[in-house]
Amino acid sequence: MESDFVSWLLRSLPQDQRLEVPAGDDAAVLRPPATRRTVVTVDLLTEGVDFLLTGNAGAAAFPPPASPWQVGYKAVAVNLSDLAAMAARPEAIVVAVALPRQGGRQLGEEIAAGVAACATEFSVTQAGGDTNAWDGPLVLSVTALGSVAPQQAWRRDAARPGDALVVTGPVGGSLLGRHLAVTPRCREALAIAAGFPVHAAIDVSDGLALDVSRLLAASGVGGVLDLAAIPIHADAVRLSTLGPEDGRDPLGHALGDGEDFELVLAMPPAAAAELVACPPEQLVAGTTMQPTIIGKVTATSGLQGRQPDGSVGPLAPKGFDHVFD
Amino acid sequence: MESDFVSWLLRSLPQDQRLEVPAGDDAAVLRPPATRRTVVTVDLLTEGVDFLLTGNAGAAAFPPPASPWQVGYKAVAVNLSDLAAMAARPEAIVVAVALPRQGGRQLGEEIAAGVAACATEFSVTQAGGDTNAWDGPLVLSVTALGSVAPQQAWRRDAARPGDALVVTGPVGGSLLGRHLAVTPRCREALAIAAGFPVHAAIDVSDGLALDVSRLLAASGVGGVLDLAAIPIHADAVRLSTLGPEDGRDPLGHALGDGEDFELVLAMPPAAAAELVACPPEQLVAGTTMQPTIIGKVTATSGLQGRQPDGSVGPLAPKGFDHVFD
Repeated sequence: MESDFVSWLLRSLPQDQRLEVPAGDDAAVLRPPATRRTVVTVDLLTEGVDFLLTGNAGAAAFPPPASPWQVGYKAVAVNLSDLAAMAARPEAIVVAVALPRQGGRQLGEEIAAGVAACATEFSVTQAGGDTNAWDGPLVLSVTALGSVAPQQAWRRDAARPGDALVVTGPVGGSLLGRHLAVTPRCREALAIAAGFPVHAAIDVSDGLALDVSRLLAASGVGGVLDLAAIPIHADAVRLSTLGPEDGRDPLGHALGDGEDFELVLAMPPAAAAELVACPPEQLVAGTTMQPTIIGKVTATSGLQGRQPDGSVGPLAPKGFDHVFD
Repeated sequence: MESDFVSWLLRSLPQDQRLEVPAGDDAAVLRPPATRRTVVTVDLLTEGVDFLLTGNAGAAAFPPPASPWQVGYKAVAVNLSDLAAMAARPEAIVVAVALPRQGGRQLGEEIAAGVAACATEFSVTQAGGDTNAWDGPLVLSVTALGSVAPQQAWRRDAARPGDALVVTGPVGGSLLGRHLAVTPRCREALAIAAGFPVHAAIDVSDGLALDVSRLLAASGVGGVLDLAAIPIHADAVRLSTLGPEDGRDPLGHALGDGEDFELVLAMPPAAAAELVACPPEQLVAGTTMQPTIIGKVTATSGLQGRQPDGSVGPLAPKGFDHVFD
């Protein structure tokens, strides 16, 4: 029953100073940090599109099915990645779930454990939620709240011609498993924001080429990606030989796979050079971040790619787009 | 396609001074009202449980199927009802949707129109969202943000023995159509909060008896409902004769149906008497609110009912609880 599950869930939530009224009321009351802005984002994950659930995935070995714990962790992590792309400090989440009636209790508990693990790791308070049961597949919707100083959020519409484009780590091939072990660049974003000027940012959720093209279009500018400079993840190389045969080479996977949850930053070139020269460990202890300059922002609109031979031509903004009509 | 739909949606959103960064970025940035708390709540609606969609409802005449516009409106309204139950001023919403692939675009546009209508009516800004397509039924998740002065939120855990219990309007029979035309008591809550002491509050979403019992349990107290005093909606009377034959009388519907979205308030008896004596129109122009005293809070735990003959006995906390195992 919903009421038993919610009682269990509420008992499991840690206390948090940020909550004047904690989860369990009609709504939660948050003490927002003085003089800071509230940043809000939502991501809804559906079984069959964002993940295949262990046990329901049939015989498919690829993409690897997710445990309920992983689904819970991922649903929080992808939202925190959006906060990172705004240079916002994560503060709170609310979680809504539609559970299948059969086995929903155990599923709910495992999801809640994954949610709690990610929330704890990134010091986010669980401010509330909504538990539903139905005859459909699993749906999980997380809304994340963050905070940022006034006018300090990294927008996606403020890249300037001449900016360097930086990506915080290698991309491609996430479906081999990284799509279920998302590491949002929250600490990295805060450290970079504290030390470097960033004009615009976006996280790579749907595909490097698509997400860069979104940033450029929102800013009313264009850009050239230096294809030889794009850090290709080992998974992209592996997927080009092991994955479903669609003829894409490792670079194709790096440009179009998405779910990398690295950040793309548009920065003054000198600052970008300084960032990539700085040992990442010096910025954030224990980080796996590896910032790389991958191109530049131009005044002419559209996304271009520079081949290793120096020739420049249009680059398709490939990536994931939900299809419906 | 998701991208076309989202472009259309973003163009349709009005500008709002509360947004430093509007919808369309990785997250929205809100300017929170100075010195106020942030109130957050989420409600997820699923097709088949919270509504039957016109066209997918088969030949069923009862409960009446919902248009996509009504689903959008309701998804916002039920969240605003939770904010009302906290005496919070509605500020912003984010909306996540999982659309069916076939016909998703038109469905999405009609839902968006319903969302916008409710947001406009209650002066709420649309701060963002997430659009998904899948092979499952329609799912809509709304997170609402409100604001309230420090320590002024109506909690559900602060009712005191001796308090009078007040309901803001007649209840029962909502499935005849009121469940699709939800009027959240936002303005009423703010007006009452400004003029009367309220110790605790909850909105009637799952059933009067169940929601009152939740308020009492959270407060560590008990209560007696005066069954002859409960304002029974005309729909409850009609449903007891027309609806699915489960043998419930009008009072049974009033106590257990839910989706009334009236507020239950625990208040000092003198203040409650003053509230019910005050012409509602004087508090909120155009309101349909009709506050009624329906019982009192006691020190002994548990929910009791007083029969018209004066006898008092346990009252089952009937109402809606999602069933899963």
